[in-house]
Amino acid sequence: MARYIKVAWQDLYRFTIECFVKVGVPISDAELIADHLVLANLRGVDSHGVIRIPYYIEGIRMGYVKAKSEIKIVREGGGTALIDGCGGLGIPVAVRATDIAIDKAKAIGIAAVAVKNLGHVGMLAYYTLRIAKNNLIGLATVNGPPFVAPWGGAQKIFGTNPLSIAFPSHDKPIVIDMATSAIASFKLKLAAMKGEKIPEGIALTKDGKPTTNPEEAYEGILLPFGGYKGYAISLVVEILSAIVSGGALSKYVPRHPSTQGGFFVLAINPMAFRDYSGYLADIKDLIHTIKTCPPAQGFTEVLIPGEPEDRNYSTRIRDGIPIDLETWRILTELAKELGVEPPPTSQ
Amino acid sequence: MARYIKVAWQDLYRFTIECFVKVGVPISDAELIADHLVLANLRGVDSHGVIRIPYYIEGIRMGYVKAKSEIKIVREGGGTALIDGCGGLGIPVAVRATDIAIDKAKAIGIAAVAVKNLGHVGMLAYYTLRIAKNNLIGLATVNGPPFVAPWGGAQKIFGTNPLSIAFPSHDKPIVIDMATSAIASFKLKLAAMKGEKIPEGIALTKDGKPTTNPEEAYEGILLPFGGYKGYAISLVVEILSAIVSGGALSKYVPRHPSTQGGFFVLAINPMAFRDYSGYLADIKDLIHTIKTCPPAQGFTEVLIPGEPEDRNYSTRIRDGIPIDLETWRILTELAKELGVEPPPTSQ
Repeated sequence: MARYIKVAWQDLYRFTIECFVKVGVPISDAELIADHLVLANLRGVDSHGVIRIPYYIEGIRMGYVKAKSEIKIVREGGGTALIDGCGGLGIPVAVRATDIAIDKAKAIGIAAVAVKNLGHVGMLAYYTLRIAKNNLIGLATVNGPPFVAPWGGAQKIFGTNPLSIAFPSHDKPIVIDMATSAIASFKLKLAAMKGEKIPEGIALTKDGKPTTNPEEAYEGILLPFGGYKGYAISLVVEILSAIVSGGALSKYVPRHPSTQGGFFVLAINPMAFRDYSGYLADIKDLIHTIKTCPPAQGFTEVLIPGEPEDRNYSTRIRDGIPIDLETWRILTELAKELGVEPPPTSQ
Repeated sequence: MARYIKVAWQDLYRFTIECFVKVGVPISDAELIADHLVLANLRGVDSHGVIRIPYYIEGIRMGYVKAKSEIKIVREGGGTALIDGCGGLGIPVAVRATDIAIDKAKAIGIAAVAVKNLGHVGMLAYYTLRIAKNNLIGLATVNGPPFVAPWGGAQKIFGTNPLSIAFPSHDKPIVIDMATSAIASFKLKLAAMKGEKIPEGIALTKDGKPTTNPEEAYEGILLPFGGYKGYAISLVVEILSAIVSGGALSKYVPRHPSTQGGFFVLAINPMAFRDYSGYLADIKDLIHTIKTCPPAQGFTEVLIPGEPEDRNYSTRIRDGIPIDLETWRILTELAKELGVEPPPTSQ
């Protein structure tokens, strides 16, 4: 028995728009959310793909987020802005914040925008890729509900606090997008759903004991990646996201897959420093150096950050997006309830 | 037999100035370098303290760096500048770049300055602390001679590529300063000098085999911290430092403790986003949350980044700076050669 069905991205995109429109999300916002979630699936980041549809809709129904996103610019300078997301769905709010950062960075070379009071922003690479498409360097961070202990601690203080950084290149952008926890919390849900175990050394039970059970870990405590250095990066993400914006520290964020603390986005124009051709030539040199590096024992090649996702994208845009049966069951139930036609599938 | 002698910081400061003045460094630059190196020792970062004096002087003599530092502003915008360090000693150049970033960030809320063509900049926390003293958030990166393989690779492509980030607080700044390698290269030299072994899993021999011998590791290949995520951070440091500035990629940097690739410094004014009192209150809340976190098994407390260095500072400013006998031997030899009086010592 196949564990997956397949859906063409165009059909999944239309389906996603219809679901959100049915619950009162304006069509232009629903299009942004659909573009975002389907891109996550195309890149193989299934934890941030259409599996989020039912959670975002539940978030609207439970009052965690508002269907109609508004933004207020609270404070603004030449290279900075603080935005109040007014409790709206995170993706449309974060896109608007990102576009403000892009415009300002094009004008003066560098800009940062901080956002408080918004819902879950999804896959951070969506925003940094948007920046990189404008030939700018992008950085984005968010904090969220508490899952992660500081290094040496046994209490959840930080969200999984992801960080994304993208660099434009002569070819596809170099794009990093990583939780600063040793594992992303939603990947625990996915592992539990698939009946898989998680590696050792990345999570504790709620009583502080090591575990490889994703459900115990989800109810327990995650550890930061990379020991005290990863803890430091997690702390940086917490401060940039929640404190620069005046949003909620992770410990105050209600635990639901539709919630977020604050969002921080930074754009830097390489052309403010040097000619773009010189920048691109050096990026090309560096990528070539990495790709021709002899692999270490146990490896077949050295990857550039974003390369595995680009490969998934190429395959899935051609062959369709695989969706595991449990996610598919949840999506078709939701479709029925909302009166939306589920997308056609293939095996 | 004591393995250390102790020197009062004031005496070490005067001694450092005299050494650099003897080799043609202008007095104001020598003062900056002395302030920098002695602060590194006071903070317990001995790998970046006065042990660097003979190396920087050797770098001048071998033609890697110039005794007289000049800077040229090559390109400048409202929030950005590119600086040519003209091959000068790195510390005075990087201080000037940092001060430009501070001035611009105060004026428009955010600024980044990139520097190419400069010598070793020392301990990055020196620059981010300088920024934090101005109530700004600071970030600094540098790349240097190749020591580190990308994740999955067996060739040195990156420098140890450190990253420092400092946040002003109601008390001492939170300050992160870490190599993105699993160990700093100079700590290998220090370990070799002290006859100590290094932990497993952080370095390979030049033939790609695991080693705990610091000399083999120094001649071999270091690994990034935190697996593929640490590799990603190392790559970010490489691009910000060497490519945004148009400086040398790590693989082109001559291997000497006086050399560097490029330097990148960013300053963000929290007041561009919100009132400073609100920022400080949230930082205080976060620090309190971390300090009251119950310790995990095997730990006695949870530390804030910078806290161990602050404790060293308090002890050493009172009791003197311990210098290991091998470093002391090298310094007194240099003193003799330069005709400088070594500082008085105690046991």
